[in-house]
Amino acid sequence: MYTAVELITAKRNGHPLSTDQITWLVNGYTSGAVLDEQFAALAMAIYYQGLTDTELLALTTAMLNSGATLNFSDLGKPTADKHSTGGVGDKITLPLTPLVASYGVAVPQLSGRGLGHTGGTLDKLEAIPGFQVDLSEAQIRSQLLQPGGVICAATAQLAPADKKIYSLRDVTATVDSMPLIASSIMSKKLAEGTDTLVLDVKTGSGAFMQDEEQARQLAEKMVWLGKRSSVHTTAVLTRMDTPLGYTVGNGIEVEETLEVLAGAGPADVVELTVTLAKHMLAGAGIDADPAEHLNNGKAMDTWRAMIAAQHGDPDAPLPTATHQHTVMARETGVLSVMDARAIGEAAWRLGAGRQVQGQTVQPTAGIRLHAKPGDAVTAGQPLMTLYTETPEALEPAEQLLGDATETVNTYLSPPLVIDVIS
Amino acid sequence: MYTAVELITAKRNGHPLSTDQITWLVNGYTSGAVLDEQFAALAMAIYYQGLTDTELLALTTAMLNSGATLNFSDLGKPTADKHSTGGVGDKITLPLTPLVASYGVAVPQLSGRGLGHTGGTLDKLEAIPGFQVDLSEAQIRSQLLQPGGVICAATAQLAPADKKIYSLRDVTATVDSMPLIASSIMSKKLAEGTDTLVLDVKTGSGAFMQDEEQARQLAEKMVWLGKRSSVHTTAVLTRMDTPLGYTVGNGIEVEETLEVLAGAGPADVVELTVTLAKHMLAGAGIDADPAEHLNNGKAMDTWRAMIAAQHGDPDAPLPTATHQHTVMARETGVLSVMDARAIGEAAWRLGAGRQVQGQTVQPTAGIRLHAKPGDAVTAGQPLMTLYTETPEALEPAEQLLGDATETVNTYLSPPLVIDVIS
Repeated sequence: MYTAVELITAKRNGHPLSTDQITWLVNGYTSGAVLDEQFAALAMAIYYQGLTDTELLALTTAMLNSGATLNFSDLGKPTADKHSTGGVGDKITLPLTPLVASYGVAVPQLSGRGLGHTGGTLDKLEAIPGFQVDLSEAQIRSQLLQPGGVICAATAQLAPADKKIYSLRDVTATVDSMPLIASSIMSKKLAEGTDTLVLDVKTGSGAFMQDEEQARQLAEKMVWLGKRSSVHTTAVLTRMDTPLGYTVGNGIEVEETLEVLAGAGPADVVELTVTLAKHMLAGAGIDADPAEHLNNGKAMDTWRAMIAAQHGDPDAPLPTATHQHTVMARETGVLSVMDARAIGEAAWRLGAGRQVQGQTVQPTAGIRLHAKPGDAVTAGQPLMTLYTETPEALEPAEQLLGDATETVNTYLSPPLVIDVIS
Repeated sequence: MYTAVELITAKRNGHPLSTDQITWLVNGYTSGAVLDEQFAALAMAIYYQGLTDTELLALTTAMLNSGATLNFSDLGKPTADKHSTGGVGDKITLPLTPLVASYGVAVPQLSGRGLGHTGGTLDKLEAIPGFQVDLSEAQIRSQLLQPGGVICAATAQLAPADKKIYSLRDVTATVDSMPLIASSIMSKKLAEGTDTLVLDVKTGSGAFMQDEEQARQLAEKMVWLGKRSSVHTTAVLTRMDTPLGYTVGNGIEVEETLEVLAGAGPADVVELTVTLAKHMLAGAGIDADPAEHLNNGKAMDTWRAMIAAQHGDPDAPLPTATHQHTVMARETGVLSVMDARAIGEAAWRLGAGRQVQGQTVQPTAGIRLHAKPGDAVTAGQPLMTLYTETPEALEPAEQLLGDATETVNTYLSPPLVIDVIS
């Protein structure tokens, strides 16, 4: 019908592909008829030429339809899902899921185990003794009824084309292509069959999209794709120059989650959790101030039920690192920079993230911040504590942090939420 | 040392790669450490970003050094080699090799079996009963001493990186990238260890490079690469809108070769053969009019010795096709167009070329022209005769020829040789 070479050539030369042609390419790649090297060349051509809206929709739809899709419409309750483009210290899914679920909304958070500076959401939760992330669809459905939230591994049956394309992009320098990012995120999320989707699109040094204008475009494209699929979709554009909260790692991010669920916790984590919850609830037709369920313990109750449902012990102490090292402030002044990228890389070096697929992460590794931009610091005071099981990683991690902070005389932190796109 | 992803990213973003980096990529791809999909993405990035001269030299050198190289400096005679970027009816290597060899120059013509409208040089020669194209290096050396010319298959040991990269480009729509073409041709040709290299760079409807300016740039780059390797290199820029000579196929092109070697033959084939021979001889320090050895039979004597040395019978009749069909002129006037591309595709459809690697070609298939641009034709007179062993191919081939010709009132053929670059 078509040949891969003619379609790659057309795209390479700037001619838009038809929906039929894109579907043929995605199905061919999923089945193996289109070769890895052919899809790699296509992805690089897309990197340069972009995709029209019609092409983007066709690509996303073909990827979405490449495998099984979930349908929770028979649960008798609204569903709401959230996706973050990823940032350093981004543990928001952890408090957000039980918080929204505590309002009677089903929150299916199906995650992959990506590569990255710190482990993914699943790695963070696995720091909890006994916690299971591999659930059957029946278990997921049962847990969505009661306690209402589930955070587990996405099954291989959902959007297999995305899994294959994502792995390919990872090794061919075609990850940072806006249409390829948008189609990857949205094909996965739409396959999960949610009514409402809230996207946390991050921009800044610790984000995938460092440029705000690009992040905004990505947000707009994803909102458009969601609406085309009749999913109530909102994107929140947020700043990611500084890690979220005071912890970057796995177990220590769970620890901070518990603070938030107890009605306390870092202001930025609380603000973002409440903001995203508000939009998820609004999508489900619920007008509420989500801070209420953080303060009255209802979100914590749901969290505990959710952890227990997945065989975790909500009361078990979290593991602590055998090695730690404290980095001191070198200057006196007001902190103006606490570079998310450098801190993320240092945490990764300490063992909190993985370098290759399949690697295990250290549940205890990571970095605790003792100050954030806007705070006054005195030279010699503790600035960060590094945790690891591999002490030989402490020195290279500290080196990565050498230029991660800056101090000035006065500094006013910019707002965390830049814009809401819906 | 490096990672493929960082180097692809750098190239993708328009940063030139160092010689060391390019060598690492080529060696890694040859060994398998750099994956097909990675080199495909790199090739597509090169398609868009091009290569600097330093990068082009590094790529060509790395490909050249990826395997064995030949050295004929101990033969006691100069060596001269020719390469054509390929055209329809391009049988020039056949008369050219014995012609130049007849002047005491060693002419090693090592060819691959590319895909293409018509078979390659090896396929044409294999129409001669008994002719062998697979020779050992010892046989090649012996034949370069006497009779002086050899046309045989390139061994797999020469520039293996080029073979791998060429196969990859073929399936990833990255064939028509100027630096990738230049490095492919020159790595192969420089590995053959010639003193003099003459390049026939074609432009026009039947050429790979349809645009004259692009063909000129390719010629200039290749001449530069040759000179950087201390090879006496000349490029002849020639027109390829009309097939060369009156035959397009395999056996029928040998037949036309014999006419040229007998001092007759089509004017364009003779002109190009003599022009290229003149530059090859000049590179070898010989100032002669090559037409002389076409007219006095010395080139024919060398041809016969060469065919015999490769176990062919120079006196055996060439095979003829079992099916033929004559296409008549539809209009009266002066032929102005005889489209090389359409005729090439029709010949390919008749069985003269191969669609996939490894396919056999029909030695008898092809097209004989009865008129060329500039000739007056009368509606109803024979214009072309199609030959094939597969009669069901006649109708689709004739359809491909439907718009291949045009007639006007007056027409002056443009010169065949556009320019000489040295």
